[in-house]
Amino acid sequence: MGKILVINSGSSSLKFALFDTAGPVDSGPGSSVHALVKGQFSGLGTDRYDVSMTRHKSGISAVSPGSAPDHHAAVASLLIWLERQGLLDDIVAVGHRVVHGGQHFHQATQLDEHKVALLEALTPLAPLHQPYSLAPIKILGERLPELVQIACFDTAFHAHQPLEAKQFALPYAMFDRGFQRYGFHGLSYDYITRRLPTIIPDFNHDARVVVAHLGNGASLCAIQAGTSLASTMGFTALEGLPMGTRCGSIDAGLVLHLIAQEGMTTDEVTTLLYKESGLLGLSGISSDMRALLNSDRPRAQQAVTHYCYRIAREIGSLSVALGGLDHIVFTAGIGEHAAPVREQVAAHCQWLGVDLDGEANQANQSCISSTTSRVGIWVIPTDEEQVIAEDCLTMYQKTLTH
Amino acid sequence: MGKILVINSGSSSLKFALFDTAGPVDSGPGSSVHALVKGQFSGLGTDRYDVSMTRHKSGISAVSPGSAPDHHAAVASLLIWLERQGLLDDIVAVGHRVVHGGQHFHQATQLDEHKVALLEALTPLAPLHQPYSLAPIKILGERLPELVQIACFDTAFHAHQPLEAKQFALPYAMFDRGFQRYGFHGLSYDYITRRLPTIIPDFNHDARVVVAHLGNGASLCAIQAGTSLASTMGFTALEGLPMGTRCGSIDAGLVLHLIAQEGMTTDEVTTLLYKESGLLGLSGISSDMRALLNSDRPRAQQAVTHYCYRIAREIGSLSVALGGLDHIVFTAGIGEHAAPVREQVAAHCQWLGVDLDGEANQANQSCISSTTSRVGIWVIPTDEEQVIAEDCLTMYQKTLTH
Repeated sequence: MGKILVINSGSSSLKFALFDTAGPVDSGPGSSVHALVKGQFSGLGTDRYDVSMTRHKSGISAVSPGSAPDHHAAVASLLIWLERQGLLDDIVAVGHRVVHGGQHFHQATQLDEHKVALLEALTPLAPLHQPYSLAPIKILGERLPELVQIACFDTAFHAHQPLEAKQFALPYAMFDRGFQRYGFHGLSYDYITRRLPTIIPDFNHDARVVVAHLGNGASLCAIQAGTSLASTMGFTALEGLPMGTRCGSIDAGLVLHLIAQEGMTTDEVTTLLYKESGLLGLSGISSDMRALLNSDRPRAQQAVTHYCYRIAREIGSLSVALGGLDHIVFTAGIGEHAAPVREQVAAHCQWLGVDLDGEANQANQSCISSTTSRVGIWVIPTDEEQVIAEDCLTMYQKTLTH
Repeated sequence: MGKILVINSGSSSLKFALFDTAGPVDSGPGSSVHALVKGQFSGLGTDRYDVSMTRHKSGISAVSPGSAPDHHAAVASLLIWLERQGLLDDIVAVGHRVVHGGQHFHQATQLDEHKVALLEALTPLAPLHQPYSLAPIKILGERLPELVQIACFDTAFHAHQPLEAKQFALPYAMFDRGFQRYGFHGLSYDYITRRLPTIIPDFNHDARVVVAHLGNGASLCAIQAGTSLASTMGFTALEGLPMGTRCGSIDAGLVLHLIAQEGMTTDEVTTLLYKESGLLGLSGISSDMRALLNSDRPRAQQAVTHYCYRIAREIGSLSVALGGLDHIVFTAGIGEHAAPVREQVAAHCQWLGVDLDGEANQANQSCISSTTSRVGIWVIPTDEEQVIAEDCLTMYQKTLTH
């Protein structure tokens, strides 16, 4: 039936994956697409530019441009490579991860010029992410105007949260103007949600699940019956958990204090809170959890302690949004690989019926709760590209049947 | 042994209470001081100036100045009245509520010029509160320089929280510069903590207690073994729960957005977040919970729904800090009187073993949990002046024995 290209574009990286819509399904039951090849341009716009690929002999690096290319050059390289491999003509749709869908895009949508303009108008809501989401869409639209392009949103999964979860306690008119909690990492949560019934034995559709997406960005999501009931991230991707370099939730009065009393500019405060805080700020050593777990310096250990404490506190908060807790799922880089983090978080939650299987945890097994644990604890690798491909296939099939 | 005068001074009000340190104890067992008279100057600096007193026939209004007096005039009136009643010479110490004790004042302290200067230097940390805390201290110091004046801090009760509770995920050097969670309402929490063993039958010293101080300002505190383990308020009195006109916790990225993208000044944002948000902002009607509970307008009801939801979410978060939950205590204006708020909060927490006795709740009884509730639910009126008087007596007795 053709192939689906998925592009997941960040500020300095561009991930891509090519999915087949027929043949063997290797992404678990329930999946209707499977990846032929995955790759990533990293270090875009820097001297540390690199390309990596998996599942394909003929590397894209053979056609990649010289040092420090930008998103344009990366997309161009990708197109040349696809053409040389004879794959370009097979592509029936390109799916893009778009960070912000605002108040009105609640599901994947086929793009046209008007919709791209609407998404571009959301840039002030995610200035550090949205332009990079949209760059490949615009580049491909110019190069291959006939191509079906589909946007899949990190915000969409959270669109049906109850009002009290989405509201800030601001003047009500501000909500309609867009000042609300959007939540992010929605594609990751959506992927996990779709996999739960195939991974957890006898999974109850109404089970109360907290998913911990712990990557360089990090958030938690309360999920029940396939729906997000609350998330730790807010209006921007700054709120909630501490992250690699982001502070997570801090007192808004502190932000005002830094500007009004300390004389910092908003740019300086933005840099402080987005780039110099989180694990990096607390430890003074690194934003990388692996480095902190390998360090015996007290500040590194305290950064990990703080990180796990905050995750656990938010699990407690989200359990109230769910009216209880049946499963915790860890995913993304730290969630999938940092056993000591999962161990500390589980220890804080023991009173909730959380009991870790220490050996299974050390081995990064799929199920890491003990046989007597009331709450299931799981490690599930996330795959945002997969969920984008699945949504693109669904949309493409709809266009064929209409 | 003499009398203790307590002054609790806010931006537009000055509460006072005169305590006897001998005679019948009417404030419950364990209390060594009892109030002879309590009163309040309200509407200071406005046209709505008023004085009210309880437990004394001869009202202070007889000596109060004309319209719209300030803190100076209020203190002057109080001194004249005390003198006329023949009480002034009996006063052995004046205890003051001081909102901010910074990083170094962890308990009540006898004031001298140097300490007052240290406290004045904390004004940037609490610009809306600290100057009013210090005004009566300075006025009395000038009028009656021999008087023993003692400061009791709203932050002190929280001083021994674990580091991860006090830290923001900011660069570690900022913590030492004072950028940390202080928590407030500490005198109220201290009062409740001292009363718990006398109110709760067979109270276990290690019980895990969340106290909800729900007044015009509002916060929650996690208390175990007499110690604050965490609080919802942060660096300023803005973080945490939504309040009458304050927004509580919001995304710091939203604050930066309002300034950088919407072109608001920090003064405008400060006014928005401190004065126009919270219950007032959400409802568009009133900051007064009584008005919202009496309204059938959807926005008023949603404001209450949001308020109770946020309280419950934070109870879940604080329960993690405690490693479980044995008691919830409601106090301060809303906590003591708004049965529907307590009912909604308890409903969110049912899965934690919280079961309300509906009739006891409606009647604002002391114990409002059902006989089968695993978690005790209590309504305990707070009394900040009482705890200040108790601390002053302890300090004064120490000075006598040295």
